[in-house]
Amino acid sequence: MHSDESGHTAISPRVSDLLRLRTGPVDLGAIATHVTPGFTGSGKTDAKTAMCHLGPRLADLQEQLYAEGRSGGRRSLLLVLQGMDTAGKEGTVNHVVGLVYPMGVLYHAFKRPTVEEREHHFLWRFKQRLPPPGIIGVFDCSHYEDVVVVRVHELVPAEVWSCRYGVINRFEGKLAASGTRIVKCFLHISKEEQKRRLLSRLDDPTKHWKYNPADVDERAYWDDYQQAYSDALEKCDTEAAPWHVVPADHKWYRNWAITMILIEQLEEMALTWPHGPEPGECTRGVGS
Amino acid sequence: MHSDESGHTAISPRVSDLLRLRTGPVDLGAIATHVTPGFTGSGKTDAKTAMCHLGPRLADLQEQLYAEGRSGGRRSLLLVLQGMDTAGKEGTVNHVVGLVYPMGVLYHAFKRPTVEEREHHFLWRFKQRLPPPGIIGVFDCSHYEDVVVVRVHELVPAEVWSCRYGVINRFEGKLAASGTRIVKCFLHISKEEQKRRLLSRLDDPTKHWKYNPADVDERAYWDDYQQAYSDALEKCDTEAAPWHVVPADHKWYRNWAITMILIEQLEEMALTWPHGPEPGECTRGVGS
Repeated sequence: MHSDESGHTAISPRVSDLLRLRTGPVDLGAIATHVTPGFTGSGKTDAKTAMCHLGPRLADLQEQLYAEGRSGGRRSLLLVLQGMDTAGKEGTVNHVVGLVYPMGVLYHAFKRPTVEEREHHFLWRFKQRLPPPGIIGVFDCSHYEDVVVVRVHELVPAEVWSCRYGVINRFEGKLAASGTRIVKCFLHISKEEQKRRLLSRLDDPTKHWKYNPADVDERAYWDDYQQAYSDALEKCDTEAAPWHVVPADHKWYRNWAITMILIEQLEEMALTWPHGPEPGECTRGVGS
Repeated sequence: MHSDESGHTAISPRVSDLLRLRTGPVDLGAIATHVTPGFTGSGKTDAKTAMCHLGPRLADLQEQLYAEGRSGGRRSLLLVLQGMDTAGKEGTVNHVVGLVYPMGVLYHAFKRPTVEEREHHFLWRFKQRLPPPGIIGVFDCSHYEDVVVVRVHELVPAEVWSCRYGVINRFEGKLAASGTRIVKCFLHISKEEQKRRLLSRLDDPTKHWKYNPADVDERAYWDDYQQAYSDALEKCDTEAAPWHVVPADHKWYRNWAITMILIEQLEEMALTWPHGPEPGECTRGVGS
């Protein structure tokens, strides 16, 4: 086996399959964070070269999806990004989502819900931001916060959050059935890597603003978060909306892997350029 | 004078000033569409090279604006794009807005208003999409449709749309006063260039889907649109929210010029990297 220009071996399995959550009980602590499944280059530099080839491919696929949406198609894609603080949700958005045309992307970072949002069903605010036909939606944090942070900080009773797994599965099932391909990625970093990243925000004056003392407070709940995420991934891994666990200690691998997953998922949709009207029908009227 | 790496003469006036609408009566028909004010390179290739240098500069400025927004600042920027069909609003979004991190951009393409939107004041739907602090908002079409397409197709009586210039000026004035820098660009193409672009959509199978017979119907109203735009630009050119007329027959010039305008406007905001907390205060707690 040797790698092609994408940094991926020609006959190896798809990254989507390699990183797909295994069935059975999930223990995130037992899943490696520094590995690079499917990548056969020698590191960061090779990954960057690979991205030069993958970027235009992803952009083409996205444009085809967009074209389909403008031509009466109903399909879309929703990328759901979850992970501990500093896991790289923002970096993924900037380096992966940034490869495609902004016109075809609907990005939303979900923060703590507002008073109005809290008055609605927990899924309400997410339903407001679903991608329309032809669009790649990106959820930077998502409805999974309602079974993770809400559980860790006991914001609602256990009997409330524990019902939500089923609610989420039904919601995602309906969404998939209506034409939205759901791509869920958990960005998986180690506790040591998080420490490095928090400290590096203090060393670099251009990163100081990213430093949020609240992140340090949250770090004390590391084990609770890992448990809550393990359960959420296990209980909400469905055929309609599978989870991928992306080892994310290496930022370059995280970017490459999510780009590959998006490309593979879009390729599976068998997109084509929609036909326009017949030329004879169209030039009529362009006139002078 | 000789050009630097940005494709711009070192001591020439700012592109923002060169393309700023002149005071007095506006006649778009008398403003050239194929010229390239401020660009001293020799054409497309030089412009692309220039963009390689301008992209990272724009991305840095945007990140500083984002950082400011995350650190309590209230400022934002709103790019308003208007122009005839095929003038290049989408191309601008893809090639200029695409230079910056998607995380810091709120893009919205305004289509024909929905039934719900029509039940509100005409500005309502635009107010829903204003950029929050730290964000670059992009209006692909905007509230100016309500004094242009609405006028051309007589969707409301003249006494209604003619009142809207003042309403728009007050709205934009308040918005600017609250910290949003408003950058309005009219992408100015010739009728011949529009014909070329409409026909090219038929020649290229990957562009067929962009071909919309309705665009051809709209072309019959070219003169009415030019008149409506001339009036809108003239009446809504204020200190708080000036208009720029960007000659857009050359796509490479359009992209370069709007990138330069954005850079100049952000530079004028004198952005800096916000200070983080004192290191001693922060490392406390990162712990193991």
